[in-house]
Order: sequence, then structure tokens, then C-alpha cells
Amino acid sequence: MDVIDVIRTKRDTGVLSDAQIDWVVDAYTRGVVAEEQMAALLMATFFRGMSAGELARWTAAMIATGEQMDFSSLDRPTTDKHSTGGVGDKITLPLTPTVAACGAAVPQLSGRGLGHTGGTLDKLESIAGWRATLSQRELLRQLRDVGAVVCAAGPGLAPADRKLYALRDVTATVESVPLIASSIMSKKIAEGTSALVLDVKVGTGAFMKNVEQARELAETMVELGAAHGVKTSALLTDMSTPLGHTAGNALEVAEAVEVLAGGGPSDVVELTVRLAREMLRACGADNGKDPADALRDGSAMDVWRAMIRAQGGYLDAALPRARHTHVVSAASSGRLTRLDALAVGVAAWRLGAGRARKEDPVSFGAGVELHAKPGDVVRVGQPLITLHSDEEERFARAIDALAGGYDISPAEQDFAPPPLVIDTVGA
Amino acid sequence: MDVIDVIRTKRDTGVLSDAQIDWVVDAYTRGVVAEEQMAALLMATFFRGMSAGELARWTAAMIATGEQMDFSSLDRPTTDKHSTGGVGDKITLPLTPTVAACGAAVPQLSGRGLGHTGGTLDKLESIAGWRATLSQRELLRQLRDVGAVVCAAGPGLAPADRKLYALRDVTATVESVPLIASSIMSKKIAEGTSALVLDVKVGTGAFMKNVEQARELAETMVELGAAHGVKTSALLTDMSTPLGHTAGNALEVAEAVEVLAGGGPSDVVELTVRLAREMLRACGADNGKDPADALRDGSAMDVWRAMIRAQGGYLDAALPRARHTHVVSAASSGRLTRLDALAVGVAAWRLGAGRARKEDPVSFGAGVELHAKPGDVVRVGQPLITLHSDEEERFARAIDALAGGYDISPAEQDFAPPPLVIDTVGA
Repeated sequence: MDVIDVIRTKRDTGVLSDAQIDWVVDAYTRGVVAEEQMAALLMATFFRGMSAGELARWTAAMIATGEQMDFSSLDRPTTDKHSTGGVGDKITLPLTPTVAACGAAVPQLSGRGLGHTGGTLDKLESIAGWRATLSQRELLRQLRDVGAVVCAAGPGLAPADRKLYALRDVTATVESVPLIASSIMSKKIAEGTSALVLDVKVGTGAFMKNVEQARELAETMVELGAAHGVKTSALLTDMSTPLGHTAGNALEVAEAVEVLAGGGPSDVVELTVRLAREMLRACGADNGKDPADALRDGSAMDVWRAMIRAQGGYLDAALPRARHTHVVSAASSGRLTRLDALAVGVAAWRLGAGRARKEDPVSFGAGVELHAKPGDVVRVGQPLITLHSDEEERFARAIDALAGGYDISPAEQDFAPPPLVIDTVGA
Repeated sequence: MDVIDVIRTKRDTGVLSDAQIDWVVDAYTRGVVAEEQMAALLMATFFRGMSAGELARWTAAMIATGEQMDFSSLDRPTTDKHSTGGVGDKITLPLTPTVAACGAAVPQLSGRGLGHTGGTLDKLESIAGWRATLSQRELLRQLRDVGAVVCAAGPGLAPADRKLYALRDVTATVESVPLIASSIMSKKIAEGTSALVLDVKVGTGAFMKNVEQARELAETMVELGAAHGVKTSALLTDMSTPLGHTAGNALEVAEAVEVLAGGGPSDVVELTVRLAREMLRACGADNGKDPADALRDGSAMDVWRAMIRAQGGYLDAALPRARHTHVVSAASSGRLTRLDALAVGVAAWRLGAGRARKEDPVSFGAGVELHAKPGDVVRVGQPLITLHSDEEERFARAIDALAGGYDISPAEQDFAPPPLVIDTVGA
């Protein structure tokens, strides 16, 4: 097989054969196909796309470069969620124990954050003692004993994806629906879950800026999951404004604990319940407790505590707090009609909550606290946003990021908030 | 400047700014932009193309990575030719001394062959003692004394092109008009010639398989030359069948010498004269001797001898001959109506005349000798093609390459040969 022929085939006719796909994915992972050759193939794929058949094969080839997990020995069905990433998206934290409390097992293999969206592992690592890395044996035991695990995806799952992801990141080939879909789904399918619910975010703070793009990605992934025997559905959810009142690692953990205690911001509660119901439905475990009840009766909190403890987390240790805070006040009275997710995400990032390169550390205490959300009425001088950072000199650039990121309109003006769940695909 | 932004700009909007072009070409040449990033940019360029303004700037940026030559101290105008490459294309050999004999100076910086088309330097190196590499001082002196030089382009001219060319070769990004045009023209403009005539080949044995593609490339290069102050014109010439009766290094030198002696195949003579006239016209030196006269009266041969001698070549040494020959005879009587350039080129390549990788040596004696050309009437059993190789075991694969590569039709059937010069652009 000649890689130049493979690239030329994609470039000129658009459709690779099964043999070409199997070969090129494997050869690239083994280092036989060079980075620059795969970069050219990825850019040709950006322009030419992939057919459904190609995408299923490409994803299978990625999975075949590594190991696959097997949860069939469990006495409960497994179900999993993947979010395409948003600002303040701490949903995995309350969701995982809630679904486990309702009777399914949740093997939530997660990642770290890069850019303005936070990573679930970064958030949980703000809990003293908690460790992200589990052996396969530990993972299985915790799933059996607790029913819920959030941990790092091991290097053995779809290693092709790690190489491809790093390459796409530096070659402007990230924004391609088949490449995004195969990256997400290869890991999720290799992970061996029986059901999967995708939370495809739409809006300024999300990867997908409009509903059409998000729907295309959702439909592509739902079809791809089905092709590999995983019951997959998707919710398209709003990411024009942050989820909840916090963006930042420890700040979000505290908010998640509020939700598990039966309180917390209504949007976080709503999305947790909606996703939990869909996850239970997808794996056929929707005859037991309702997720809203699990949050109210403390059973979700019990699973959370067991899950954190099982991975070494100290439940009673105080969460890290940043050394400095800065309050942004309302410059006028009226109704907050817009609070841009990207502006808040970038501010949190600049405060130290996120990382620019994957080697960078994150500050656990850094982030943004929102005292008002779109629809709320505010008075001039009232605290609107509190910035948290370990380094005072970071405030100026965070404030720059927020400039123009929100609108205060006359309070009597009509305001209709966008729906949190925009649509469902494949449910 | 961020290379990912540059790639994304080309990918999404198609047009790079001057600053982006200047930066990315220079940064790539210095190794700051990685191979995989340039590969992605090249593939995006394949799909998006370049505007005329972008192409002029991209080419200028390539030139700026190296040195530029200056022939303004000569008392004669300089004029140069570039062929896009064909089978049996030895035209540079008789052309360069012919044009010099008519009053212009010809600094013909040439390359080696790769694939089925031969390289001018490989051909001349079959002359014992001849050396391709000259210092700038030697080059200038020979131009002044002899008026004609064929030598290797030094590494200092447009070094960006060497890196880009090698990268395009392995990433299936060769077949892009702006990338081809900038590759050719950056070297020719850096070389400092005042006029340039392009021989854009069209047909099975050429890079451009049809006239539309060839015309687009020719028009692009003519415009690009003008943008850099080089008087540029182009001939579109037929490459559906080989030029002359030979393909192979020493075989072609012998044929070139026949032409310089006033004989030789009519197509080689015709193209030499047409290109020579155009080169003289382009540099304003068309008031003196006509190239056809220079071939007839021996003055072109005089320059040839001086030119070869100046670079160490032994004029009286016998040219290398291959150790073995094999004759392919006509299987039927009739008129040869087709003799495919690509088939002959691949056969010569397989016999040892060309190289597959740029490190490979070539066999000087190897190649193909054609005893008939399209239009000729042949008798069954008559020698049609003689194969020359140093290794007898190469004949079988060369014969394979020729299979289906020629047609013998009833002699009474109409036959209209395609015109040798199909069109001119910018003349």
C-alpha cells in the first residue's frame, strides 16, 4: 500500500477503500506513515468529508490500534455520557453518581481541559487526595462496588486517537465532523459501554457555533455508535451562556456538591436530570428510581461520597481557594440579557483555571463566579462577577476578556431565555 | 504570527495576507513551522488555490529565502527556457548553444530527473569529464566567454523550494497549479534572467494531461513572471509521443549532436528553432542570426563544443553504451498511428535511464531507441524499438511497460499527426 495513493484517492475521489483505511490508520499509529502525510490526508478529509461507511471503518481501525474494555461481567448495564465541552460544564460530577444511584453502572473515562473549556479530571483533582488514574482491575472493582467511576482514559484505548488528536491540533484540522466524531466515538466504543448519551453543545462557548453544525455532528455520532452496536443518542444543549454560576475547577466541584445535596443552580439540575434519564433509558435501566428523586433523597450524594473516597479523595478537606478575588460590578441597573459563554470561559482560562499547552498546570482555585444569569434583574453597583486567581496580575486580562461579554438592558424589556435542551437526536 | 491561524485562513477564506505569506514561507524554511503544518497548508492550497496577488507574494517570499543572481554586468541580454518535462526532451542541449550563437546569453540552470522524465544534467553527465556544478564566478565567466551555460542550480537559489518540493512529493500535493508555478518561477526569477520561455508539455508523457490544464499553468506562470519583471511567454507543446528518436541519457546526447550538426529528427529541430526564436524575441535579441541558420552553418555546434569543453567535457570521448540491447519488432505491417510517451518513458526508466529516488544513480547508456514515429509505415518483423540496458533482466519489465503503448493500423487509414506546437501564451 502506498500512502501517496491513499492521500490522492481521498483528495481526488473522496472515498477510501476499507483496505486503504485499515492500512493508513494502523501504519500512522506505528509511525510508518509520517506526520506530514497524515496531515495532508486529514486536510483532504476536511475538504472531502467521509461517507458513513468510511467513517465506521475509520473508527473501527482507530479502535483496532488498541485494547477494548469489557464490562459484561457486571450485573448492571453500563451507560456513559460524553459532552463536546462547554463553559461551566460540571455536569459529569453530579450526573455520574445520580445515574449509578438509579441502577446503572457508569464508567466515565474523562480527559483534561485544553483551552477555554475545563476538563473533568482537572475539576476532581481539586479534591485533596483524589487520583485520576486507575488500573483496569481497580476500575472494574469500583464499578462493581460503587457503580460509578470517573477516571482517566488509559493509554491503551484507541492510541491512534492520541496521535491524531495532537496532529489535528497543530494543523488546523480539528473542525471536521468525521474527524471529531471518530475521535470521540473510538474511545467511547473501545471503552465498552453498552449505551452512550452525547451532550452536543451549541453556542459561543462551544465548539459548534450553530444548531445545524451541532445536529450534523450529533447525527453522525449516533449513526456511528449504532454501526458499532452501542445504543447512542444525543441532546443538543445551549452553550451561549455558562452552565450554573461557576467556571473553574474547585468552584465547580463546590457547585456540583450543592446539586447533589438537592440544591444548586436550576440549569445544572435540569441538565443533570435530563441526561440521567436519557442514559438510563438508553441502557434499559429506566424502571427504577427517577434521577430527580436520587438528588432529593440523598442517594446520589451517597454514591458521590463512595466514588470520591474509592479514588483516595478526602471528603472533609476544604476545597482550594484562590489567593485573590476581584469583583466586577454592574455599571447600570436593568436586566442581564446576555452573558457570553466564550467571554466567561476565556476569563476563567486567563485567571489560571485552564491551560494553553497540555503540559501546563492548572490553578484549582482560579475561576469565575457569576452572581447573575441572563434574565436576572441587577442594580447599578451590585456585584455581577467575582474573579478568583492566585496571581493578581491576571485580573486585567480576564477583565479584558469579559469586556463586551454581557448586556444589561432596561428591565421592562421582554426577555426570552433560549431553551437549555434544544433538541434530541436518536432518542 | 500563529501558523494554525494561517492554515485556518487558507482553509476557510482562501486568501492569505502578505504578512502571513512572508512569515509562513520564511518560518517553514527556517524549520520554525513544522513539516506537518506546511503539509496541511499545501493541501488546503490544493483545494482553495491562490489569487494572482497571493501567488506573486508567495513566489517572492520563496525567492527571499535565498540569494539572487545578477547578470546585468553582461554585454548581452539573458534569456532562459524551462520545460515542464517530457519523454525524450533533450531540447535544452541543442537549444542553449543555438540561442547563444544568435547573440543572447543563456544561463540554463537545470535539474536531475526523477520518475519517467529525464533530467538535463543526467544527460550531459554521460559526457566524460563534464561537471554540472559551477561556482557563481565560473558561471558568470562562462556566460561572458561562451554565452551559454547548462549547470546545476546552486543550493542558494530559493531554498524554500527544495524543502517544499520534497514535502509535496510525499504528501500528494504536487498537482496544484499555484504550487507548480511558484516552484518553477521562484528558481527562474532568483536566477536573474531577463526573459524566460516556458515549454509547457501536454499529453500522456507530461505532467499536464490536457490542454486546458496546461494553458492554465502557462497563463499563471506568464502572469507571475510579468509580476516579477521577467518577460515570460509560453509554448504549449505536444507530449503524447516522445520527442525525437531516443529516450535515455547518452542516446539523447548523440541525437542532440546530430541536430547541432544540421541533421537530426525533424520534431527536435522544429521545437529547437521555435523555442530559440521565442527566447531571442523575448529578450530583444531577435535582430541577428536566425536559429535555423545557426544550426545549418555550424555556429551553434561551435558554441556547444566551447560550452562542453568549458565544463571539463571530453568532446572526443565515445559516449557510454549499454552492455545489452533487445529489439522489439513490428507484429504486423501498417502505419504506426500511436506511440505513447508515457509507455516509452516508463520503459526507459525501467531500463535504468531514470531514478526512482533522488539518491539513485542512473545508467548513462540505458534507454529506448525508436525506429519509427507516428505516421511512419512499418513492415511486419521490422525493428520498431531497440531497448538498451546494462542489465539483461531489466528488459522484461520494460517490454511490459511498452505493451499497449503503440498501435499499428492499416497503412491506407487516414493519419493526422497532432501539431507539435499547440499554442503560444503571452508571446
